[in-house]
Amino acid sequence: MKRALVSVTNKDGIVDFCKGLVDLGFEIVSTGGTMAKLQAENVPCIAIDDVTGFPEILDGRVKTLHPKVHGGLLFRRDLQEHVDTVEKMDIQPIDVVCVNLYEFEKALKAGKPMEDMIENIDIGGPSMIRSAAKNFKDVLIVTDPADYDSVLTAIKDKTDDFDFRLNLAYKAFSTTGAYDAMISRYFAGVVGDDFPDTLNISLKKTEHLRYGENSQQRANTYVDPFVQETLLDYEQLHGKEISFNNVNDLYGAIAVVREFKDQIVTAAIKHSTPCGVAIGKDGYDSYMKAYEADPQSIFGGIVAVNYKIDKKTAEEMHKIFLEIVAAPDFDDDALEVLKKKKNLRILKLKNLYVREAKYDIKYLEGKVLVQDINTEMIKEMNCVTDTKPTEAQLTDMEFGMRVVKFVKSNAICIVKDGVTLAVGGGQTSRIWALENAIINNKDKDFNGAVLASDAFFPFSDCAEVAYKAGIGAIVQPGGSVRDQDSIDFCNEKGIPMVFTGYRHFRH
Amino acid sequence: MKRALVSVTNKDGIVDFCKGLVDLGFEIVSTGGTMAKLQAENVPCIAIDDVTGFPEILDGRVKTLHPKVHGGLLFRRDLQEHVDTVEKMDIQPIDVVCVNLYEFEKALKAGKPMEDMIENIDIGGPSMIRSAAKNFKDVLIVTDPADYDSVLTAIKDKTDDFDFRLNLAYKAFSTTGAYDAMISRYFAGVVGDDFPDTLNISLKKTEHLRYGENSQQRANTYVDPFVQETLLDYEQLHGKEISFNNVNDLYGAIAVVREFKDQIVTAAIKHSTPCGVAIGKDGYDSYMKAYEADPQSIFGGIVAVNYKIDKKTAEEMHKIFLEIVAAPDFDDDALEVLKKKKNLRILKLKNLYVREAKYDIKYLEGKVLVQDINTEMIKEMNCVTDTKPTEAQLTDMEFGMRVVKFVKSNAICIVKDGVTLAVGGGQTSRIWALENAIINNKDKDFNGAVLASDAFFPFSDCAEVAYKAGIGAIVQPGGSVRDQDSIDFCNEKGIPMVFTGYRHFRH
Repeated sequence: MKRALVSVTNKDGIVDFCKGLVDLGFEIVSTGGTMAKLQAENVPCIAIDDVTGFPEILDGRVKTLHPKVHGGLLFRRDLQEHVDTVEKMDIQPIDVVCVNLYEFEKALKAGKPMEDMIENIDIGGPSMIRSAAKNFKDVLIVTDPADYDSVLTAIKDKTDDFDFRLNLAYKAFSTTGAYDAMISRYFAGVVGDDFPDTLNISLKKTEHLRYGENSQQRANTYVDPFVQETLLDYEQLHGKEISFNNVNDLYGAIAVVREFKDQIVTAAIKHSTPCGVAIGKDGYDSYMKAYEADPQSIFGGIVAVNYKIDKKTAEEMHKIFLEIVAAPDFDDDALEVLKKKKNLRILKLKNLYVREAKYDIKYLEGKVLVQDINTEMIKEMNCVTDTKPTEAQLTDMEFGMRVVKFVKSNAICIVKDGVTLAVGGGQTSRIWALENAIINNKDKDFNGAVLASDAFFPFSDCAEVAYKAGIGAIVQPGGSVRDQDSIDFCNEKGIPMVFTGYRHFRH
Repeated sequence: MKRALVSVTNKDGIVDFCKGLVDLGFEIVSTGGTMAKLQAENVPCIAIDDVTGFPEILDGRVKTLHPKVHGGLLFRRDLQEHVDTVEKMDIQPIDVVCVNLYEFEKALKAGKPMEDMIENIDIGGPSMIRSAAKNFKDVLIVTDPADYDSVLTAIKDKTDDFDFRLNLAYKAFSTTGAYDAMISRYFAGVVGDDFPDTLNISLKKTEHLRYGENSQQRANTYVDPFVQETLLDYEQLHGKEISFNNVNDLYGAIAVVREFKDQIVTAAIKHSTPCGVAIGKDGYDSYMKAYEADPQSIFGGIVAVNYKIDKKTAEEMHKIFLEIVAAPDFDDDALEVLKKKKNLRILKLKNLYVREAKYDIKYLEGKVLVQDINTEMIKEMNCVTDTKPTEAQLTDMEFGMRVVKFVKSNAICIVKDGVTLAVGGGQTSRIWALENAIINNKDKDFNGAVLASDAFFPFSDCAEVAYKAGIGAIVQPGGSVRDQDSIDFCNEKGIPMVFTGYRHFRH
């Protein structure tokens, strides 16, 4: 007679699974709560104590950690010596193990105190899973209720071959790995270790994507279950399935919008780069300004906003081809308008202002850069010129820094009255970023506009080009050995310049 | 009398540690090889069988999985009921656990067959570690030989307080998490699962960095131990410590160079973007051409090459300010020249052509995009125009695609005779990328040059601007609904245009 050891926290489907095993001629060995549940449903089973001859002790902390259990799991059926040993020691073979674990993750999400978290660390479960998985050639290890049916079918049809068992073992070690990853990151948080010597990140697959950044790349989305709420949590209300580049660009779009809490803002993004960002007196005003900032680049782009979209605004959005409209909310009649475009992805953002995640991670083919997310914006508003900025200029300076932070370096933003007039980025020279921003928008009037730069000016050339274009004020982090050249030029021309102290490279 | 349970695979320092424990009044319980080693060094110890009353069986697969061991680890000293239970069951408390694990990672790196890999999965070890770590308030769990001294000192000085024990427990779960992450990824490889439902990545910290992408961000480098050889493995021969942006930009630089196997190539990179890439008849020729391609942007940049750098080339490199020179090798006299600059980072690349890593990962604050690395280059060379490209143009087309792949989208590269003349990237509109590339290099002669684009032309405007600039041939992936507009224009002007089939967005 074959034997199955069953001990689960998540009891979904366990009764039917065990009934199936009994029908297939298995006897069930079980523990505590699982056994009570099975007995209540008239599934015959043997108590683990009867197998071990040792009582369950210490409030269940020790019940299966016994050689009669682990010997029954770990002996190799293909080695006569092992077979003789278990016979001699009166150890019964265990052929199927069905175990899932104390719900540490659930306790974590519920914000339980440390004492409870520790009680939720399963000891016996992972041991059984790992013993069975190590000996998968002889033992079926079932860790996921979703597999119950296929396991029963495979046993019945005798298709529980090497590959089938191997796949179950693989899943088993994935489960124990993820479990201890979660525990170790919990402890990292408790002791305040922001950059652990061992950083265990266990990702859960969420969506298969049609392809990656390019069609020759396969891709999937994952979540880091340790981060409970992410900026990219949304409900898709309409439209085509999200693509890899959609998700990537959307992140850039929402990240810009997140910087504005007290103002009504619209951000249009193309290829991860802001092409039009604008503050408005209402949503419509804000959208129209962001659109007019660059009516060409927005085509095929993403629009993210921090306001409830109304019908009037939706009608304007409907006029052009957009990949995504993302907002915290939509009026019903606005949704109706937007939904007329079959493919337009309409996303309701759940956590526009969340900043829960700690890390920015660049995975460079196995070498990995882990850094803090760049949550800072402006360290100080230090006017370094004789001429002081007006209130309006100061406001635009802050606006400009908030946008330029999200443009690829070298990055330049020219803004006026809370609207981007020109954005220049991705250049290998700062002066090119500025010159290109101006040339690409040659029909615009830059008089009185504010120039924001993501990093310091290496020479006075940027200030000179800005002056020639009619720009009225400059904001930049400062910090060049030649800052004085730019300051002297600005003083000569009466242009106020403010140093903010924080550089915002973005590569 | 206090008790320590000691069972280690890595026996470094174990004798001295146990001697120290004995001196502090501990009795040592040990197993198999560890015990033999201790006894050979006259450290008194008790066999684990004497504790369990159960022999070690199944070639050591089962030796410590016993309630007398785990009861001794897991009982809560603050609960009278637990204390009574262990007394009644004649279970001796265990106060210190020193365990490290079968070397699965070492076996993996040695390329052992699956049977050996399975034998190298430790079962008893992780169980003891996890039991002790769960009960860390009462048990010291020591998993790292580097901690032996501090543990002895803490016990001696009675500073093994809650925080001390907590930190050991944290390390313990980090260890078991990393261990099963490695096992699960091994099995993923065995079953051929490229995008696992649970993707366990356990990173090891390698270097603390002064700061991250910006000084307000803290950062460290890590490695994914599952990737044995990475493109970024180097030996630093000289210079200042590597910065975050250095590593990030270096990756871009080497990734470009890796695309060239049969040619001698130099790539200069600034802000992750190629500013000068050139093929030469020798290293010197290649470097000079890459330098002259953009003598301004290279300032403060990174140079990576695929040849041994000689003195003559080093002397040219020495003339300008570079952050990094990276090469597979250096002549001694070349090194001497380069080392004259105190800060210049000189890196000897170990694995210039390695492609071991599978994944490109974008970690977006907890939402994660996982895709294949874009290893493809050109699917086909499909000439879509009446005029066919010359051999020289075809060669430049391939060269141009290899470079433009590494420029941020929208990306344009203008090349001639294996040298970049102009690079335009990071733009929200393709025509801007092209126009800016031309304007930024207005003194250059584009007659007969080849234009390479990372993605298709949405309109014929790019072909028109290229023609006006004197460009003689175009290469691009194709795939626009309006491809025919560009083809018609090229046919009208007699410009050959080739479609490659693979887009290379890079965001």
